[in-house]
Amino acid sequence: MNVRIAQNSGFCFGVKRAINLALKAAEEDDNIITIGPIIHNPQMVQKLFEQGISSVEDLSKVENRIAIIRSHGIEKNKKELLETKCKKIIDATCPYVSKTQEFGKTLYEEGYQVIIYGDENHPEVVALKSYVPNNEAMVISDPKELKGFSFRRVGVISQTTRKLSGLQEVVSKILEISNEVRVINTICNATAVRQEASLKLAKASDLMIVVGGKNSSNTKMLAKICGDNIKTYHIETSQEICKEWFDENIQNIGITAGASTPDWVIVEVYNKIIEYIGNGEKQISEFSEIPVFKED
Amino acid sequence: MNVRIAQNSGFCFGVKRAINLALKAAEEDDNIITIGPIIHNPQMVQKLFEQGISSVEDLSKVENRIAIIRSHGIEKNKKELLETKCKKIIDATCPYVSKTQEFGKTLYEEGYQVIIYGDENHPEVVALKSYVPNNEAMVISDPKELKGFSFRRVGVISQTTRKLSGLQEVVSKILEISNEVRVINTICNATAVRQEASLKLAKASDLMIVVGGKNSSNTKMLAKICGDNIKTYHIETSQEICKEWFDENIQNIGITAGASTPDWVIVEVYNKIIEYIGNGEKQISEFSEIPVFKED
Repeated sequence: MNVRIAQNSGFCFGVKRAINLALKAAEEDDNIITIGPIIHNPQMVQKLFEQGISSVEDLSKVENRIAIIRSHGIEKNKKELLETKCKKIIDATCPYVSKTQEFGKTLYEEGYQVIIYGDENHPEVVALKSYVPNNEAMVISDPKELKGFSFRRVGVISQTTRKLSGLQEVVSKILEISNEVRVINTICNATAVRQEASLKLAKASDLMIVVGGKNSSNTKMLAKICGDNIKTYHIETSQEICKEWFDENIQNIGITAGASTPDWVIVEVYNKIIEYIGNGEKQISEFSEIPVFKED
Repeated sequence: MNVRIAQNSGFCFGVKRAINLALKAAEEDDNIITIGPIIHNPQMVQKLFEQGISSVEDLSKVENRIAIIRSHGIEKNKKELLETKCKKIIDATCPYVSKTQEFGKTLYEEGYQVIIYGDENHPEVVALKSYVPNNEAMVISDPKELKGFSFRRVGVISQTTRKLSGLQEVVSKILEISNEVRVINTICNATAVRQEASLKLAKASDLMIVVGGKNSSNTKMLAKICGDNIKTYHIETSQEICKEWFDENIQNIGITAGASTPDWVIVEVYNKIIEYIGNGEKQISEFSEIPVFKED
């Protein structure tokens, strides 16, 4: 049996940056909080907790503490509140997400009806929406939601982790119901690249293991893309793996992981698979030792 | 047998306006020229010729004459030349086309790579392209032509007679290869409305007769749309109609006509069909007497 990992699996630039900022802060100070879990990965959140960084939702508890704004960003009014109350703010908002917030504001100011393509309950979108003045942005996750609307000028931005094909469908629909549409493609390239690499591996595998938070949008999307092609399991940790998954029909096993999945979690998954399939390959200690799937 | 015409057949707003401007000019002056045929309809061009309006291509022949700029518009440098040479200019450019020319210039000045979706040899597109400074607009008629390109910011405008579905495909492709795309939908609503009405009639007919210049883009498009659904003939005049087209299998005959097809040409076509099918219906003298197809 072959066990291979998709290229570009695991932490993206924004998550790596946020975690590094948090770990550096923890070295220098106590009393650090993140506003909501820093990333959508329970294992990483637990690890940070062990280093003295706790997650709070209730902003009445931030007084005189050091607050880390997580990679998804935070609503404008909440950030302003933190600025008045906290001892210090460490803004770990992914720079690509910050850009999206700026675009939202600019499009509104230039007279566009802002439409955000994304999940209205996702923290990135909740934050993004707050940067469009007067709460006037419309959030849609499907072009069908535009039925009955018509616009003069529409400005479109996207949750960074969405698929381009979805954005293309939304824009096509908007072209039918508006005179002008301006799209700033805020979909993060890292997501597309990871999705593509995962799809390629899925097509070359008999089984896919997608590793990442059950609450992580981009991991769920990877599981969907792989699952549309081949039998796929979405797991958070190696403990969820069952030996029975790897029967005699399974020759090629693929692993991929979301942007918020830490390396060590992926390593544990790899080692557990090696243990179960028992084909003589050795266990590893470093993420970089996992064989990467490359197309010929 | 039923003979019905599609709603919105024949002259559009821009063509009607251009013809009226030309006829009014012919009442007041001699020595009038149009720069190229005023519309893409040989019968109408001949009729104007009989009223003393001739079409010239050679700009050395415009000195001290009254020049009519046709509904498709004219290249910027040619217009400037006419302004210096002619006794008077009557600008019969369709106001929707003039708007497109303004958008092309504005998008360029705002830093967009201008992409024109249309036929690079169509006079409207040739003129439009000339309004984008430094000859920097790119003209494409198919998204495949974008292969290998990438852009930072793209501004898209369209030949007014194109189909929305084509523009949607072009925009989808551009979203894959650029950071930002701004689309000003310059497709003329009259074209879409006429196409839709023609399609509805085609679906309710056994045979379609599409009337209009063989050199008219929008008429050719009507013939394509109808022909994709039912047996269709594209004719310029009633003389092309064959009695054999109307055999016993043909119960419902549909007529539609391009934006540059004069009413009297359509009336002649209707009367010729009535003559051939000989079902007792009387010939007509007015366009308004042709039974219009309306959906129940």
